[in-house]
Amino acid sequence: ELKSLLDEFHYADIAEILDELNLEEAVYVIKLLDSETTSDILMELDEDNREKVLRNLSAKEIAEEIEELDTDDAADIIAELPEKRQQEVISQIEDEAHKAEITELLAYDEDTAGGLMAKELVKVYDTWTVAGCLRRIRGQAEEVTRVHSVYVVNKQGKLVGRLSLKDLIVAKSEKKIADIYISSVDFVNVHDDVEDVARVMAKYDLEAIPVVDENQILLGRITIDDIVDVIKEEAEKDYQLAAGISQDVEADDSVWKLTKARLPWLLIGMFGGLGAAGIIEQFNDHMGAFVVLLSFVPLIQATAGNVGVQSSAIVVQGLANNSIGGNIIKRLLKEALLGLVNGFAIACIGLLVTHFVFNTSYMVSVTISIALVAVILMAALVGTFIPIFLDKRGIDPAVATGPFITTSNDLFGILIYFLIAKIMLGF
Amino acid sequence: ELKSLLDEFHYADIAEILDELNLEEAVYVIKLLDSETTSDILMELDEDNREKVLRNLSAKEIAEEIEELDTDDAADIIAELPEKRQQEVISQIEDEAHKAEITELLAYDEDTAGGLMAKELVKVYDTWTVAGCLRRIRGQAEEVTRVHSVYVVNKQGKLVGRLSLKDLIVAKSEKKIADIYISSVDFVNVHDDVEDVARVMAKYDLEAIPVVDENQILLGRITIDDIVDVIKEEAEKDYQLAAGISQDVEADDSVWKLTKARLPWLLIGMFGGLGAAGIIEQFNDHMGAFVVLLSFVPLIQATAGNVGVQSSAIVVQGLANNSIGGNIIKRLLKEALLGLVNGFAIACIGLLVTHFVFNTSYMVSVTISIALVAVILMAALVGTFIPIFLDKRGIDPAVATGPFITTSNDLFGILIYFLIAKIMLGF
Ligand SMILES: [Mg+2]
Ligand SMILES: [Mg+2]
Ligand SMILES: [Mg+2]
Ligand SMILES: [Mg+2]
Ligand SMILES: [Mg+2]
Ligand SMILES: [Mg+2]
Ligand SMILES: [Mg+2]
Ligand SMILES: [Mg+2]
Ligand SMILES: [Mg+2]
Ligand SMILES: [Mg+2]
Ligand SMILES: [Mg+2]
Ligand SMILES: [Mg+2]
Ligand SMILES: [Mg+2]
Repeated sequence: ELKSLLDEFHYADIAEILDELNLEEAVYVIKLLDSETTSDILMELDEDNREKVLRNLSAKEIAEEIEELDTDDAADIIAELPEKRQQEVISQIEDEAHKAEITELLAYDEDTAGGLMAKELVKVYDTWTVAGCLRRIRGQAEEVTRVHSVYVVNKQGKLVGRLSLKDLIVAKSEKKIADIYISSVDFVNVHDDVEDVARVMAKYDLEAIPVVDENQILLGRITIDDIVDVIKEEAEKDYQLAAGISQDVEADDSVWKLTKARLPWLLIGMFGGLGAAGIIEQFNDHMGAFVVLLSFVPLIQATAGNVGVQSSAIVVQGLANNSIGGNIIKRLLKEALLGLVNGFAIACIGLLVTHFVFNTSYMVSVTISIALVAVILMAALVGTFIPIFLDKRGIDPAVATGPFITTSNDLFGILIYFLIAKIMLGF
Repeated sequence: ELKSLLDEFHYADIAEILDELNLEEAVYVIKLLDSETTSDILMELDEDNREKVLRNLSAKEIAEEIEELDTDDAADIIAELPEKRQQEVISQIEDEAHKAEITELLAYDEDTAGGLMAKELVKVYDTWTVAGCLRRIRGQAEEVTRVHSVYVVNKQGKLVGRLSLKDLIVAKSEKKIADIYISSVDFVNVHDDVEDVARVMAKYDLEAIPVVDENQILLGRITIDDIVDVIKEEAEKDYQLAAGISQDVEADDSVWKLTKARLPWLLIGMFGGLGAAGIIEQFNDHMGAFVVLLSFVPLIQATAGNVGVQSSAIVVQGLANNSIGGNIIKRLLKEALLGLVNGFAIACIGLLVTHFVFNTSYMVSVTISIALVAVILMAALVGTFIPIFLDKRGIDPAVATGPFITTSNDLFGILIYFLIAKIMLGF
């Protein structure tokens, strides 16, 4: 009964249900259904749950699931297994062609086009006729779920162009492919970064893109559904980095996993706070009547933190979109100008509120205002410079957002505040 | 020469070049090329630049561009024009069917399926034959750029199923559509939120989805390229909100526009900082020998801010993915547990460092440690509760991230710190 009930659901829905069940129940359902459905369910499971389920299946059972999957998904599942199990599973795959293709895909880095592509595609030679082509596509119809484009290659297997199914249907059947194919075809190199592939596909509104090697030999194809996943994952990763969460975690993960992802950044923030305490102690002894300055430390700190996060976020996003025009100096000057505009507004309000509401002396109020401008300027420049610097060195600039920027700006900000106070008030 | 040079570029690349030119040059290029290309270029331009270019074109010229665009893009461009111009442009559209379709689309909210869908699609009646169908598709081939699926409707125009082009090619030509169509077809309602449409398409790996009204009448189709844009825009918006940037801005925007997006949040942070100063002043007068507590205000503040941002980010992301299981109380308990674990670790380090490095008395160190646990607990609960609360009230929880959470946690954190100190140290 359960089986016929589940048969009516989409595999992505069954996966959602299984993610909520306990391991025993999930394994029971997986073993109950046939591998045509369960292979797709496995792909959609949460990574942690998939790992657990796979541990409860034999190498033979996993190989049966693998046989049903497209090569890209098959390779991804195998890559998640421990080294030794990988070999066991691969050796149990019966379809030799499938096995060879999966083994080929396993060689590519998961962050490259090769790691995302599938071997399933429809390829025709430029010497064929339209009728021959259609015959061939009918033959391949079972293997390739969605055709998108038909890729045209020459005798050496080099990609020379493409055809849409529609072009094929509309063309006369005796025509040669060489006469009708479209030679302007977008493609990516097998070693290209997946984020670059995503940018190209989004920019040109592609549903699939062929992947070639250095010699333009057609190796595979990337489809938009997998790019949608890449875009979502990258966005979530950057969002978490900006929020000070250092691993790919979800609200549903265990307290232990969440702690591992969150505690490191809290510790960094903590040492920033302790560093700030050290700075304050240094000045505290000499401050005398100006101890009132301590009350405004939170103001300085909040301002430095907020400006730093704003500046770094906008730079990180600009870098991700390739929309940041060249020159670092020009960008820093723009941030400086922006900092002065914002700083001036904040400083004016600060001057009035501290003097008239907190009754601080004129000199103290002016000191706080000047410090606010200086701190905003510093925070904007640090927030802009660090991501660009990391990017130039090939490090993901997103790591520089969130607590990293906040912490360094807290420290710099408080230091600048007291230095300016020391100079202006002469303690 | 320029014309034949540009003819070799993809419209998305020309748009990128135009975004870098000044207005006069951009308008010159737009007028130089024919509307078949320029309409696509217009769609790809940065919104601000498009607005300026359109201001330099006559209603007649805009109507000519509109004629070349798919209905979804055409409606989007018209919707961006001032009310009066909208009517002028619409009245200049010569193709009456196109005009009627665009007018229909203009009625839908841009954040709904109706606001994203296009009228272009291939629709066949279930009474037709395969051969008739293929003839019809050949006829529509010019109008619909990418076919994806063929939608099957009954006599009343209600969506009953779908066919892939591949199914049509493989089927015998004398077969009836009613005998071969697939009746399980995903669809969305015209009033569904675009983010829900994006979730459905990502989950089921769809490249296009039909849009129907309350009576299941087929109204239009949404394609994945537009969903990719939605996903990217939503991610960027949430990222900016978390960073305290309140409008859709880019690194390249003017200083004025960037200031408008950033200053409001800085002001909120500023008033938080001033509020904190007020709290400190209240306690300051009675603190006496415990003035050393002031040095650790940045530590309390940084910790409260970081924990709050972490908690709210993970909840906001969970809400966006629909991956947060029901019960608020359960979620708050989990965050509380997580807060206790993190808080205990932080408090232990805090106790040791303050006592042995800063030489604070044992009681002061214990006070700081207890305050750290309390503040982490509070920040985690506030960071979790506020997004869930906003979501329940139909407000985008993403607005509660970033400076909003940091500011309220700064205030609560400092207040809790001094209250605990007052009780423990008895000043
Ligand atoms: Mg892979
Ligand atoms: Mg696009
Ligand atoms: Mg587009
Ligand atoms: Mg795939
Ligand atoms: Mg990234
Ligand atoms: Mg997980
Ligand atoms: Mg629209
Ligand atoms: Mg998907
Ligand atoms: Mg998928
Ligand atoms: Mg569209
Ligand atoms: Mg959102
Ligand atoms: Mg803009
Ligand atoms: Mg802060």
